[in-house]
Amino acid sequence: MNHKKVFNTIGLLLIIEGILLLLPAAVGLVYREPRAMSAFLLSAGVSATVGGVLVAFLRPKNNVIYAKDGFAIVSIAWIAMSAFGALPFVLSGEIPNYIDAFFETVSGFTTTGASVLSSVEDKTHAVLFWRSFTHWIGGMGVIVFMMAILSSISDRSIHIMRAEMPGPTVGKLVPRTKDTAKILYLIYVGLTVVQVILLLCGGMPFFDSLLHTFGTAGTGGFGVRNDSIGSYSSYLTNVITVFMLLFGINFNLYYLLLVGKFKAVLKSTELWCYLAIAAVAAGIITLNILPGYESAGKAIEDAAFQVASVMTTTGFSTTDFNLWPSLSKAILLILMFVGACAGSTGGGLKVSRVMILFKLIFRELRQMLHPRSVNSVKFEGKPVETATLNSVATYFVVYVVCLAGAFLALCFEPGFDFETNFTATVACFNNIGPGFGGVGPASNFSAYSGFSKLVLSAAMLLGRLEIFPLILACSPSTWKRK
Amino acid sequence: MNHKKVFNTIGLLLIIEGILLLLPAAVGLVYREPRAMSAFLLSAGVSATVGGVLVAFLRPKNNVIYAKDGFAIVSIAWIAMSAFGALPFVLSGEIPNYIDAFFETVSGFTTTGASVLSSVEDKTHAVLFWRSFTHWIGGMGVIVFMMAILSSISDRSIHIMRAEMPGPTVGKLVPRTKDTAKILYLIYVGLTVVQVILLLCGGMPFFDSLLHTFGTAGTGGFGVRNDSIGSYSSYLTNVITVFMLLFGINFNLYYLLLVGKFKAVLKSTELWCYLAIAAVAAGIITLNILPGYESAGKAIEDAAFQVASVMTTTGFSTTDFNLWPSLSKAILLILMFVGACAGSTGGGLKVSRVMILFKLIFRELRQMLHPRSVNSVKFEGKPVETATLNSVATYFVVYVVCLAGAFLALCFEPGFDFETNFTATVACFNNIGPGFGGVGPASNFSAYSGFSKLVLSAAMLLGRLEIFPLILACSPSTWKRK
Repeated sequence: MNHKKVFNTIGLLLIIEGILLLLPAAVGLVYREPRAMSAFLLSAGVSATVGGVLVAFLRPKNNVIYAKDGFAIVSIAWIAMSAFGALPFVLSGEIPNYIDAFFETVSGFTTTGASVLSSVEDKTHAVLFWRSFTHWIGGMGVIVFMMAILSSISDRSIHIMRAEMPGPTVGKLVPRTKDTAKILYLIYVGLTVVQVILLLCGGMPFFDSLLHTFGTAGTGGFGVRNDSIGSYSSYLTNVITVFMLLFGINFNLYYLLLVGKFKAVLKSTELWCYLAIAAVAAGIITLNILPGYESAGKAIEDAAFQVASVMTTTGFSTTDFNLWPSLSKAILLILMFVGACAGSTGGGLKVSRVMILFKLIFRELRQMLHPRSVNSVKFEGKPVETATLNSVATYFVVYVVCLAGAFLALCFEPGFDFETNFTATVACFNNIGPGFGGVGPASNFSAYSGFSKLVLSAAMLLGRLEIFPLILACSPSTWKRK
Repeated sequence: MNHKKVFNTIGLLLIIEGILLLLPAAVGLVYREPRAMSAFLLSAGVSATVGGVLVAFLRPKNNVIYAKDGFAIVSIAWIAMSAFGALPFVLSGEIPNYIDAFFETVSGFTTTGASVLSSVEDKTHAVLFWRSFTHWIGGMGVIVFMMAILSSISDRSIHIMRAEMPGPTVGKLVPRTKDTAKILYLIYVGLTVVQVILLLCGGMPFFDSLLHTFGTAGTGGFGVRNDSIGSYSSYLTNVITVFMLLFGINFNLYYLLLVGKFKAVLKSTELWCYLAIAAVAAGIITLNILPGYESAGKAIEDAAFQVASVMTTTGFSTTDFNLWPSLSKAILLILMFVGACAGSTGGGLKVSRVMILFKLIFRELRQMLHPRSVNSVKFEGKPVETATLNSVATYFVVYVVCLAGAFLALCFEPGFDFETNFTATVACFNNIGPGFGGVGPASNFSAYSGFSKLVLSAAMLLGRLEIFPLILACSPSTWKRK
């Protein structure tokens, strides 16, 4: 491993985090929250100083990074960003316990939205801003962000991007990785601005509009009210529904739109499958919850919002879906696993992976009926390489194994029922946020012990980074010097 | 498809079932249960008559069967056997509802052991005998049974055996399929006789010994007392623990023992892994439940029994493990998925499949660290073919998809909590029997509606036949005439 390059990059990232921490400090200044402001200033100083020391003392001799360096950078970066990002919560006294603050920050950066806070309405604007802003940064990837703003990090930075971007395959939109990162961020910023404007038009205050947009864009789920989106108007609810779905779409498609390739967008089977699943799920849930509603319109609105929120792994809610009938809850649970499109800010398995997994099943069935025929799997019109197919199948195996492992680790703590533990694991691992039972939309994760919160933090990171980078970063072979 | 051959074989099977139904009739005669006896005689007549008509009118022109015929025979056979096997329960009036009786019979043949009966102690000996006897027949496979007793069914009967035998690959012990089936059944009968004798030595009445042995041998779980094995002595409990574990071992190993190849048996990594998982699980559970026990010995005994019962997918219980702490329940839940060894009478994923899945993960990790190296997967000392690896991975995918589908279908019925629905699906699909919550060892499946019971019956059949035969039998392509 190129140790110096790895830790030099982490240092750079911590300096950037120090700069980012000045934003909530400014929010504290505007809203006259001196204690929160000084907490953010101090945290910014600590983060930038540690980063500066790493950059100053670890000057890499060469800039070449290999796959294993990419895994190490991404894994350490996400943990370090969360460790330093948690400081202001503790220093401001608003989340006094460091493990709680770490959980909240991991939940923010991984765009999970699982919270330890029983009330957010008594928190300062600065703290609420930072919580939601971590969603926005984490959504597109903290390192993609760095690549977008800094000049060439490395000659082979695709290895970093590949380790951080969700979905089965990462392609570059344009030849240079850095340009790809820039284009992705421009689309991201563009959609963010549009959503803020639309929310403002619906009468939502600017601060709330901005923070809800951060939560939507990163498919995170942290809000500013204790009942999430429950008390906003139909218009605002529906705007957020639409934008959650938009941020769950592969960003490559927006790039194709920008360059005028409309037909290519319409041909995306992942997009159609994603929309079809959402529509069918919302339809069935509407019928299922209708008896408990006064008007069909409100039932459709709630069903669509919750489906969009869970499938894109955002985690906002307009109603306590933990109280819904078992069929609706089962559908939501399955959507938690399916997740959003590859190359979006959403989590879960990703629609394209699920589609490829189903194609694998059909290939196996054809093979059993006609043992001598040759069957290839096609996706988006092109045959899928055997190596990719194997990777997708193996990813699914490791995904289920990690989920089972995290669930087992969570069960070490007595006192929680099966539904709570199971859906807490699923909701954290797939970066959704609320689950069912004791961790439903009307509850929070504060009841868990420190150990359990660290388990769930690990689950969130594993889910966001799609498992392999973190496991490989733990392998001694990654740390060997050349 | 060779329609005539398929239905001719089903006919033969129904005739055999008619003969088998005379056994419980004889039990009814011995215990002077006239109503039950006449129900079994009538059912025997119906089954044999329908079978006879099929055999008489559908005489195949050729005996060649292909893979798809094997799938069709196995699928139809298991459903038909269950449909006719359910008759005596209804006719005797002891399970008056036909869907309930069908559920109970499917549960018997698939060696699940999930019951709709709230009390078994008020049932006749004939009915109890038939319930347990279906376990014994289903354990090794109804068609393997037929192949063992009839002269050559077909020139290619390996296709049937492959469709019916659990585990990733089916090898023939000896060149002729029929001889393999005979050897397997001889081992099966041998172990059964030994267990009955050992139970008799512990003072268990002959009838109870026989039925518990049927339940153990088939890894089924139907018993003769309402508290399952809870009220028997330590000696009897431990005998059953050991024999559950023995019936969860690949029967090929017993054959190797018989022919003196001891070293080959000791080299079986699946065997060691199976025993190691059981030992570790029992150890952790013992520590976890110890505070609730007066003596460590009893805790070890209960932990070992429940681990053996769940891992081999038998489903007997000596205590209500639904009341155990969440960690112990989580371990049992994971064991439900792992299951027993391939080529045993147990269900679940099978230890060898789980091992291969883990090897796939490690291969992927190696591949990511060293992209240019060539990695092969070895199992039991031999490299595994890529086709087998793909099949195992795809099986896992289809397994999870079917599980999710069955769970979703079960959630259509309101009024059951998450834990009950989820573990009912898992326990039926993996052919265990009891789950947690409303379907725990102290409860039963009677509260579910007819629709839900059919869903769970389908789950039991899918689990026992390892999914593909049933799906393929539903494909129109299977039914096409040549």
